[in-house]
Amino acid sequence: MTELGVVRRKIKRANRSAVEALGRYGVATVHEAMGRVGLMKPYMRPIYPGALISGTAVTVLLHPGDNWMMHVAAEQIEAGDIVVAALSADCVDGFFGDLLATSFKARGAKGLIIDAGVRDVKTLTEMGFPVWSKAVSAKGTVKATLGSVNIPVVCAGALVNPGDAIVADDDGVVVVPAAAAQKTAEAAAAREANEGDKRAKLASGVLGLDMYKMREPLEKAGLKYVD
Amino acid sequence: MTELGVVRRKIKRANRSAVEALGRYGVATVHEAMGRVGLMKPYMRPIYPGALISGTAVTVLLHPGDNWMMHVAAEQIEAGDIVVAALSADCVDGFFGDLLATSFKARGAKGLIIDAGVRDVKTLTEMGFPVWSKAVSAKGTVKATLGSVNIPVVCAGALVNPGDAIVADDDGVVVVPAAAAQKTAEAAAAREANEGDKRAKLASGVLGLDMYKMREPLEKAGLKYVD
Amino acid sequence: MTELGVVRRKIKRANRSAVEALGRYGVATVHEAMGRVGLMKPYMRPIYPGALISGTAVTVLLHPGDNWMMHVAAEQIEAGDIVVAALSADCVDGFFGDLLATSFKARGAKGLIIDAGVRDVKTLTEMGFPVWSKAVSAKGTVKATLGSVNIPVVCAGALVNPGDAIVADDDGVVVVPAAAAQKTAEAAAAREANEGDKRAKLASGVLGLDMYKMREPLEKAGLKYVD
Amino acid sequence: MTELGVVRRKIKRANRSAVEALGRYGVATVHEAMGRVGLMKPYMRPIYPGALISGTAVTVLLHPGDNWMMHVAAEQIEAGDIVVAALSADCVDGFFGDLLATSFKARGAKGLIIDAGVRDVKTLTEMGFPVWSKAVSAKGTVKATLGSVNIPVVCAGALVNPGDAIVADDDGVVVVPAAAAQKTAEAAAAREANEGDKRAKLASGVLGLDMYKMREPLEKAGLKYVD
Amino acid sequence: MTELGVVRRKIKRANRSAVEALGRYGVATVHEAMGRVGLMKPYMRPIYPGALISGTAVTVLLHPGDNWMMHVAAEQIEAGDIVVAALSADCVDGFFGDLLATSFKARGAKGLIIDAGVRDVKTLTEMGFPVWSKAVSAKGTVKATLGSVNIPVVCAGALVNPGDAIVADDDGVVVVPAAAAQKTAEAAAAREANEGDKRAKLASGVLGLDMYKMREPLEKAGLKYVD
Amino acid sequence: MTELGVVRRKIKRANRSAVEALGRYGVATVHEAMGRVGLMKPYMRPIYPGALISGTAVTVLLHPGDNWMMHVAAEQIEAGDIVVAALSADCVDGFFGDLLATSFKARGAKGLIIDAGVRDVKTLTEMGFPVWSKAVSAKGTVKATLGSVNIPVVCAGALVNPGDAIVADDDGVVVVPAAAAQKTAEAAAAREANEGDKRAKLASGVLGLDMYKMREPLEKAGLKYVD
Repeated sequence: MTELGVVRRKIKRANRSAVEALGRYGVATVHEAMGRVGLMKPYMRPIYPGALISGTAVTVLLHPGDNWMMHVAAEQIEAGDIVVAALSADCVDGFFGDLLATSFKARGAKGLIIDAGVRDVKTLTEMGFPVWSKAVSAKGTVKATLGSVNIPVVCAGALVNPGDAIVADDDGVVVVPAAAAQKTAEAAAAREANEGDKRAKLASGVLGLDMYKMREPLEKAGLKYVD
Repeated sequence: MTELGVVRRKIKRANRSAVEALGRYGVATVHEAMGRVGLMKPYMRPIYPGALISGTAVTVLLHPGDNWMMHVAAEQIEAGDIVVAALSADCVDGFFGDLLATSFKARGAKGLIIDAGVRDVKTLTEMGFPVWSKAVSAKGTVKATLGSVNIPVVCAGALVNPGDAIVADDDGVVVVPAAAAQKTAEAAAAREANEGDKRAKLASGVLGLDMYKMREPLEKAGLKYVD
Repeated sequence: MTELGVVRRKIKRANRSAVEALGRYGVATVHEAMGRVGLMKPYMRPIYPGALISGTAVTVLLHPGDNWMMHVAAEQIEAGDIVVAALSADCVDGFFGDLLATSFKARGAKGLIIDAGVRDVKTLTEMGFPVWSKAVSAKGTVKATLGSVNIPVVCAGALVNPGDAIVADDDGVVVVPAAAAQKTAEAAAAREANEGDKRAKLASGVLGLDMYKMREPLEKAGLKYVD
Repeated sequence: MTELGVVRRKIKRANRSAVEALGRYGVATVHEAMGRVGLMKPYMRPIYPGALISGTAVTVLLHPGDNWMMHVAAEQIEAGDIVVAALSADCVDGFFGDLLATSFKARGAKGLIIDAGVRDVKTLTEMGFPVWSKAVSAKGTVKATLGSVNIPVVCAGALVNPGDAIVADDDGVVVVPAAAAQKTAEAAAAREANEGDKRAKLASGVLGLDMYKMREPLEKAGLKYVD
Repeated sequence: MTELGVVRRKIKRANRSAVEALGRYGVATVHEAMGRVGLMKPYMRPIYPGALISGTAVTVLLHPGDNWMMHVAAEQIEAGDIVVAALSADCVDGFFGDLLATSFKARGAKGLIIDAGVRDVKTLTEMGFPVWSKAVSAKGTVKATLGSVNIPVVCAGALVNPGDAIVADDDGVVVVPAAAAQKTAEAAAAREANEGDKRAKLASGVLGLDMYKMREPLEKAGLKYVD
Repeated sequence: MTELGVVRRKIKRANRSAVEALGRYGVATVHEAMGRVGLMKPYMRPIYPGALISGTAVTVLLHPGDNWMMHVAAEQIEAGDIVVAALSADCVDGFFGDLLATSFKARGAKGLIIDAGVRDVKTLTEMGFPVWSKAVSAKGTVKATLGSVNIPVVCAGALVNPGDAIVADDDGVVVVPAAAAQKTAEAAAAREANEGDKRAKLASGVLGLDMYKMREPLEKAGLKYVD
């Protein structure tokens, strides 16, 4: 049961080198390596193009219009973490701006994933502090009600446990459970190794129909060619 | 980590009498008794007004355009269950219609919660088989890919573990973790007992400002009356 | 400039008999009589079909996730009023339920228009207390921050001044400035008188093309008939 | 190429008895019988529950905020037709109300399908004139620009040719090309005949897993049962 | 009451130097300095990143699919103005393109805020004429119906009076009533002065928890730390 | 009637030089030259700014969550084609990524228009392979069900026949029927010739009111100037 008013200080973070490895492959490859689960909804968009980060999740549960817990979360950040902010109900206010970003960055955070709004995007872009969010909004928030830090949360449709590995890039955000980080990094590596070869063949004009041997199953399924 | 291709046959269901008790209070009261967590997103709407059900979750994870696992889920239903269907990615096809409803009902299901589309709503209404869904759509689905049954799923933004208590009515759908069902039912009962009194006072014209003693805190917060 | 933390106790309400007259014509006719302005966005839907109300606006400005001001607004209600609740930022929490409805009704309110969520819709339906809202949600709210009562607000895209006439039915919600209520009621009456005649002609098979003398302007505009 | 400013008076309507037959099966069954194509998007909803109509399409192309062509379309209606209104760009104004409904009904129309807004829904409900629309809105429209009548249109994502068979019910709206109406009606009949039997078996507790012989293909696909 | 068919030629513009000052702080700071009111909905997005403008509002009310009034508005533009275009009903057609931008720019306009669609975005970007809009659409509009120029309008949820100060940047659009421009500029300046200091502290690793003295109120509110 | 499981190998492509000419004018101008029809819905956005392509359509109909037909479509691509992918029901999975892009590019495709999601957008941007899509999503798809290639499809609200001319840029996507390509290119050229002159006049400060001689019709329509 979701606990409110709780901050968990000790969390088990995913293996650092596995997390770094995941960051080399990007979201689409990691998501495939996971068996196509763990992806946040596609409405989560980066505030600027080109960023690619991987890190371990510090989670925070916020209430609509209230960002008090973001300050509590800041203290729990270790170098290499990514803050993952979930909401108890939909809200697109700007829960995060340049001051919090300065603080998060000073603590070692690599970025923010927030199922709500963000503001000061120009400054955040200049700082090189990437954020994936549901919206951009200048609307500020109050500091009046307790959420929690480092409890399991649902962020943009994905379950995130504190310490899970997070990978985010232009394609979106994927969550890898801490216990699966190493295995997923290996699966991603294998997949990637495989892709260079395929790419070269396709670039030379070989068709996927032939490379993946699809002609027979397509015919079996009933595909008909007409002129 | 979300497992694909798995059916868990033995699940620990929430205490039956607690689940029944929850059904007496409705979603808004249960959600308050939970401390305002566990609610599915408000886009989940009933296909007809007036239904109120409580039961234990049999969960199913589906892929876009594919309802094969619904048939697998049917076998895992026990009397008093509610099927909770989550999607691996957004899709509003009609994954469920009158034939599946006939089967689910015969197995003892009290209703369906589905983060996707449903069809045959006229017949389902006549059958009295309630469904809370994201959409109504006549679009059928194929039976080609494996999801899972009775694994933890995220449905309409809420985490649902198999066996959790589910309450659904015109206000939406709330999830109560199995271990918290009894305590929540008691909190809901206490809350409800309390409400009759308040309602009578308010009906007689007493203001919430006075009944809840809000005048002083409002003044302290700086509220000003002008003519 | 929108004032926060203010309650205006004396407001100039639209002429009562004009407001009652507006209620006889319904939203579409009143909106036409206004010259096609003043309509709230079509996402505002009634919680049950068939209600038609007219009244004078008591306005309230709320913040996301906070319904404190609803209790303050209750005290300002006079018989024949309709409460119009606007939000400082988008939020679909359930700001209003059966207890507040009991209080509003006891004070003489005819209904609620809220650019956010509502809950306890089954009970509200049984009470016959109509609500037009953006969403239905069981999600409760806190009581922590000051908004205002009886200031000008923008609700669902429409400007509402305290005391303005409000008409709401299955077609939506329209706002008539207090000073224009009488004139608009007369224009609506004239329009309505006119419609009975037209309806009878159309029912007899006469075409709008002929009744409205559209054939010539259509031809001028270049319309071509082909077989 | 979409022609503007054109009214086609002679259209080839789908076979009347086939159209009537289609109306006996409803949208979900007809859509299946079509091979799962021809469905309008699920945002098209009926203004009141329980209506089921089938008829032949009189199409009309409208521009945002302008319903002039609806009057032109009225003249082209024959008994048994359903008017299908498409928009040249998204708009949710109320293009249609009780006066046009009176006229359409007098001409023999069975209902309206409109990829935009409708108003006077209470009166339309009382008249028993069903409408499937994208929105309800009291916002009126002008009569200033030419669209066309009885040209091919795309309505809510579906291509509709004048004369095509349309079936609409609580599940949505499906389009059957005129030339395919007879064959589709037969396929629907065959499908329906088949369903009574299945329904009885499922009601008796037989599982779809067994009835459809799914256990073997599921096992082959790798499904695993765990306790 | 919203007047249609009216052009107000003499409007009282906000103090020029105050408006310029507001432009130095950006939307988020100005919005805070206003007390968190006056923000347009976050769906209003710039057509290219990095623009920051402030100016005085020339307002225009348009009808769906009709941009005639834009040409009327052009004549009312003075150097330093920003055109704010509101719609009488939702529409995302492209009401504005490179020709109108050329004209607006020649008249001295600094940009356009439009609660609808815009087109020719590549050319507008090359011209450096910034637009904040709800959508991008190539769909053209007609010139057939009268709206108004320089009347109070509701644009993207915010009330705008002609002459009000407008600030727009990557975070959105905020409206400052003309009479409040000077005071708001001062409040923004004070706020900004204050922020440099905070930023330096946070950058050095000081926590907001300590800098804002939040630990005590958090403890009072019941926050619990667990390991 | 939409055929499933069919690949048409011989299609009549729009005249190559007409298609190239269309590409010189961009979407807004071509759409005007068409008489304001043929535009896809404005939710279709380019994955990177600045691209402008024209080509001939190879169409493909996909089912939710299944991109098998994309491989079949690859074989039908000729140099200068643009692949137009439609969905049988709404789905935002990532149907297309860098491998398919490599293959399409090798076959001579100029870009992809897809009424669904796309992934690997960073790589696609680096490759300079433009895509207009409804969403960006890393979610992969299966290869299990038959759609069709080179049949008429409805993509983002527009009817596309194989061989039609497609123009896409920052303003969106427009479809020109093959038979109308030449005529439309000529109309676009005429329009464009006309625009340079207008632009120069407007840039010099001449008002559209005077250039288009609107003052008289505006006065006739009742426009009033007040001070």
